[in-house]
Amino acid sequence: MYSFSCDYLEGCHEEVLKALCETNMEQAPGYGGDRFTALAVEEIRQSCEDPDAAIHFVNGGTQTNQLVIDTLLEPFEGTLAAETGHINVHEAGAIEFSGHKVLTLPQKDGKIAASDVEAYMQRFYSDGTHEHMVFPGMVYISHPTEYGTLYSAKELTDLSAVCRKYHMKLFLDGARLGYGLASEGTDVTLPLIDKLCDVFYIGGTKVGALNGEAIVFPGGKEPSHYETRIKQHGAMFAKGRLVGVQFATLFKDNLYLRISRHAIEMAKQIRQIFEEAGCRFYMDSPTNQQFVILENRALKELGRYVEFEIWQPYDADHTVVRFASSWATTQEGIEELRRAVALCIK
Amino acid sequence: MYSFSCDYLEGCHEEVLKALCETNMEQAPGYGGDRFTALAVEEIRQSCEDPDAAIHFVNGGTQTNQLVIDTLLEPFEGTLAAETGHINVHEAGAIEFSGHKVLTLPQKDGKIAASDVEAYMQRFYSDGTHEHMVFPGMVYISHPTEYGTLYSAKELTDLSAVCRKYHMKLFLDGARLGYGLASEGTDVTLPLIDKLCDVFYIGGTKVGALNGEAIVFPGGKEPSHYETRIKQHGAMFAKGRLVGVQFATLFKDNLYLRISRHAIEMAKQIRQIFEEAGCRFYMDSPTNQQFVILENRALKELGRYVEFEIWQPYDADHTVVRFASSWATTQEGIEELRRAVALCIK
Amino acid sequence: MYSFSCDYLEGCHEEVLKALCETNMEQAPGYGGDRFTALAVEEIRQSCEDPDAAIHFVNGGTQTNQLVIDTLLEPFEGTLAAETGHINVHEAGAIEFSGHKVLTLPQKDGKIAASDVEAYMQRFYSDGTHEHMVFPGMVYISHPTEYGTLYSAKELTDLSAVCRKYHMKLFLDGARLGYGLASEGTDVTLPLIDKLCDVFYIGGTKVGALNGEAIVFPGGKEPSHYETRIKQHGAMFAKGRLVGVQFATLFKDNLYLRISRHAIEMAKQIRQIFEEAGCRFYMDSPTNQQFVILENRALKELGRYVEFEIWQPYDADHTVVRFASSWATTQEGIEELRRAVALCIK
Amino acid sequence: MYSFSCDYLEGCHEEVLKALCETNMEQAPGYGGDRFTALAVEEIRQSCEDPDAAIHFVNGGTQTNQLVIDTLLEPFEGTLAAETGHINVHEAGAIEFSGHKVLTLPQKDGKIAASDVEAYMQRFYSDGTHEHMVFPGMVYISHPTEYGTLYSAKELTDLSAVCRKYHMKLFLDGARLGYGLASEGTDVTLPLIDKLCDVFYIGGTKVGALNGEAIVFPGGKEPSHYETRIKQHGAMFAKGRLVGVQFATLFKDNLYLRISRHAIEMAKQIRQIFEEAGCRFYMDSPTNQQFVILENRALKELGRYVEFEIWQPYDADHTVVRFASSWATTQEGIEELRRAVALCIK
Repeated sequence: MYSFSCDYLEGCHEEVLKALCETNMEQAPGYGGDRFTALAVEEIRQSCEDPDAAIHFVNGGTQTNQLVIDTLLEPFEGTLAAETGHINVHEAGAIEFSGHKVLTLPQKDGKIAASDVEAYMQRFYSDGTHEHMVFPGMVYISHPTEYGTLYSAKELTDLSAVCRKYHMKLFLDGARLGYGLASEGTDVTLPLIDKLCDVFYIGGTKVGALNGEAIVFPGGKEPSHYETRIKQHGAMFAKGRLVGVQFATLFKDNLYLRISRHAIEMAKQIRQIFEEAGCRFYMDSPTNQQFVILENRALKELGRYVEFEIWQPYDADHTVVRFASSWATTQEGIEELRRAVALCIK
Repeated sequence: MYSFSCDYLEGCHEEVLKALCETNMEQAPGYGGDRFTALAVEEIRQSCEDPDAAIHFVNGGTQTNQLVIDTLLEPFEGTLAAETGHINVHEAGAIEFSGHKVLTLPQKDGKIAASDVEAYMQRFYSDGTHEHMVFPGMVYISHPTEYGTLYSAKELTDLSAVCRKYHMKLFLDGARLGYGLASEGTDVTLPLIDKLCDVFYIGGTKVGALNGEAIVFPGGKEPSHYETRIKQHGAMFAKGRLVGVQFATLFKDNLYLRISRHAIEMAKQIRQIFEEAGCRFYMDSPTNQQFVILENRALKELGRYVEFEIWQPYDADHTVVRFASSWATTQEGIEELRRAVALCIK
Repeated sequence: MYSFSCDYLEGCHEEVLKALCETNMEQAPGYGGDRFTALAVEEIRQSCEDPDAAIHFVNGGTQTNQLVIDTLLEPFEGTLAAETGHINVHEAGAIEFSGHKVLTLPQKDGKIAASDVEAYMQRFYSDGTHEHMVFPGMVYISHPTEYGTLYSAKELTDLSAVCRKYHMKLFLDGARLGYGLASEGTDVTLPLIDKLCDVFYIGGTKVGALNGEAIVFPGGKEPSHYETRIKQHGAMFAKGRLVGVQFATLFKDNLYLRISRHAIEMAKQIRQIFEEAGCRFYMDSPTNQQFVILENRALKELGRYVEFEIWQPYDADHTVVRFASSWATTQEGIEELRRAVALCIK
Repeated sequence: MYSFSCDYLEGCHEEVLKALCETNMEQAPGYGGDRFTALAVEEIRQSCEDPDAAIHFVNGGTQTNQLVIDTLLEPFEGTLAAETGHINVHEAGAIEFSGHKVLTLPQKDGKIAASDVEAYMQRFYSDGTHEHMVFPGMVYISHPTEYGTLYSAKELTDLSAVCRKYHMKLFLDGARLGYGLASEGTDVTLPLIDKLCDVFYIGGTKVGALNGEAIVFPGGKEPSHYETRIKQHGAMFAKGRLVGVQFATLFKDNLYLRISRHAIEMAKQIRQIFEEAGCRFYMDSPTNQQFVILENRALKELGRYVEFEIWQPYDADHTVVRFASSWATTQEGIEELRRAVALCIK
């Protein structure tokens, strides 16, 4: 049974696998000192149009968020995030584990607005006892968000400006960054993100790699002794080559964007299938995640033919479900879905 | 100029000071092994009608909250609290410093409802990915709350029931507990709190002592090696006698309640003064803190005669201010206030 | 130039790579819910002769040590370890980062003795203020040790006994466990380790895998909510299949032991080469790491032909260097070494 | 029975108590904003001959050490300390609780030598993998040490120099600082300490106060947002007046030094009593703690007449015991001891 339940169902893109096979027995030094990692760094710098960017590779999204937030914040600072932000809900308290509070802001479509950050900071500094409060030292956003939505260049620019005004870092969680960059109509590019953020990460696990995320510090502005901090967090690869080879392949000849565009194309077909079946969407998502509102009986029926993820109840009779495409989604899978929808949703 | 800005403006009650003077040169062992501490423990047990209660004394409210929450929770658990809870707003992230997330609930008059806890837990367990979320292991309440309001016996009983249903601890922050117990019309007693909570603390700093809070574990159910945990948190007194003597005095012959009643009587007069001046109240508080809505011009004028605390803006022309009474408030101070209000508020 | 500088120079064993290739496009659920992980768990249970063992896979050694130690210890406990233990020296304070102290014991050949643990505990409990000290809650050992040495079955049994006597956990760090199990003359087997330890890990990164370590809780005695703890530490794989496939392959038909035996065979040849050249050894190591004492001039010369690791100064004229073999070491590499030694050491 | 078991047996010096009584009902703002604290700060600045010194008061030694070390170190740094240092042995892991490793150095008479620090740093930087090790960011010393010994001005100057050479902070734990400054023959003064250290604390709890320690940052070089950090650690006094009044009294007219000299005088008599009884000393201590080697049978006998502290076994027949004097020791107590020794030690 074909599954659309998430975007990390398959291994890695065939080009990536091929590179792993071809380099497998080459001896390479550990801890990121290998030539593959150096190549990956160089390619990502070019993609970001930032020849000085400092780049580190770690294993997964929660690890990345914990490491980045803990190392960029002063120990008495916390990070602002949307109430629905991944770090606030689904990371088992990994941020608090490292001593930092997640300070929540209201969200719209999973996004936070520069004006809400501004209002928070105004309130903060007007509180006579703010020295007894957690200092907001960072704004955390995800792009695409947990709901598959995207910030516009204008929205990102405004967030960046309010962060600089209040001496806060701007951190963009790009677990699904490829699907954001490849989305039709977006005006947000990798160089723009590099220009506006203090740190961001380019997700590999959900976009063509077996594992691995690339943390980017634009302009090379990384905290001191960063290798030590990575090691201290238990986040250092002995065989850095594993992620080095993968990212070197993903960022060669635009592969990362090309396979992301495939996911967007597949998502468009998914959306179309449900639109034609007369279904409503919980949110208008231009990326690889589609949140469909299904009648509960249809949902049960559909679950006999394809896999998807139950997201949340919508009302007594309806449920929000997620269909995710990815670099690996096949046209055959889409056709299975089409047939299943035709059978189950009338 | 007389001050009503908070309830920790003076030193300690004269009886407490007298006891400190009388015992000052008596040699006593350190770390709580002294006879004064033993006496204080015995008296508090009697007041709680709990002969097995385990009791420890530490220095202040934030330290107490950090210690209690960190040591009662499993490392992967967080605590539920009102959005306005002291631990969520004004403790500089002391809870997160020890690795735990504060999970917020909506509040009404500074209180949380058992039904909101129930709803939270239902949602938590119905989330398919709750193993990736912070487990709610405790409900934190303050009594009186940060707004001077009180839980009823029924409300506390319901909170206790929902906590037991979901195997969560119930922790009552009693920084101003005396003023809650002494409030007219309350049906919440120390033995009832002892019966319903897993842990609570009896505030000394704001109720007659120079410093010190008494942490009570009903039935003696304290985490193992508690002295080590206190030491590890930097919260152990070398001279435990300092708090031992104070609490032994406060809990002898009901002194704690008697001086708390004085504060309530003073608060009643404060309320009356503002009522008669036609002022509205932000909240109906039966304890020692009164939140008055003042017209901004009157506020400025009044500030020339008495001290009080600016709480928060109310609307463009009005501000919420706090007048706090305490065990130390004098009738002379009240009369100063009366004259000032007569002068400034028309 | 052939390198003997460490045992993580190449990718993964060809069988492992083949399995990754063959399963690459199969859809599998995330977070370890895949069939490969289930298979790996089953095979490791069989190898340990422990059908109830609980097994979790994480990314690297430091992460494993931090996770295991933090989750098995009570928050007020520390772990005993050899002064030379990896967690005490080369993990950037990852153990302290999670709040626990490493309590050091003297070592001999990198090993600690049950009698030293016994003496430590005697001293600890005879200290009148041990409630102000860090409780030793665990004994951490590495097998093979950082010096390539091995515990005997008797030594392990004695350590296990003293741990049980004092209610401490015994944790065996098996980053190079294969090379220990495959060593000639050892009487320590996987089922014995499973029987004597409270937790141990089977290293993959250094023994045939691209990455990954298998944490084993004998008898299934893992701390509660272990998935949540893994997630909280940022140690959870989204694509658990990556390590699932690798360990399922390594533990099929004894591959793990077979490739480890190859490393031992290669190490024997390395030892022989240096013995025949008249070199002394810093320590008598029966596993894959050989610590040779080289005359400084010879060392410099040799470095022009093969790579190895400078370990530490020996005396004014000599240096200890490490030559490591692994599952990947080739006979050609050994021959290069033989020629180089013949040229440089006379 | 008179006790010499420690130096925190009595309450506070009578002058201090008098000041507490006289100021008790004066209203004063919280959190250190009171005039007593301002006065104490001013007086300590004068005693240190450092008009810019930043000074904060907290409750006890372990809390002070945890706060100072955690806030001065970078999160990836640890502190060097003598193996016998209080933070390494008797603070229940409070330093590690805040994430930092205690890196131990050998000690002589409880002291560490600049040359040992130098050697440690040389070894550290010569290790090719020191980026995987805990960075030594501080040297922690206690003065007097845990054994009552003192650094000379030369030794402190050398330690300060090696710290500056390696960009490490020098932190002096002065829990018993008065007894060090008042010791006969010492050439270490408060202004010298202020000149050589990056931070130090002046102990109150053991030298005349009910509680409280004064943290001094010479030249005002404190970490940013220090109030927030104190609050985050649970170390802030609501009634800062309590310690403000005490330190203002202790540093008025040299009271701190005068009462310390009394303790030194009493210690001299203790030493003389045992010398005349033919006893040996474990260490030659010029301060208020005297470590006497007692024959076990005499020890048992003596314990029937006076109290003292068992320190550690010396040999099969002898034990090291501690007799501590303090600001509070009476001549009557000394005479009791004299009679007891005459009776029990022959």
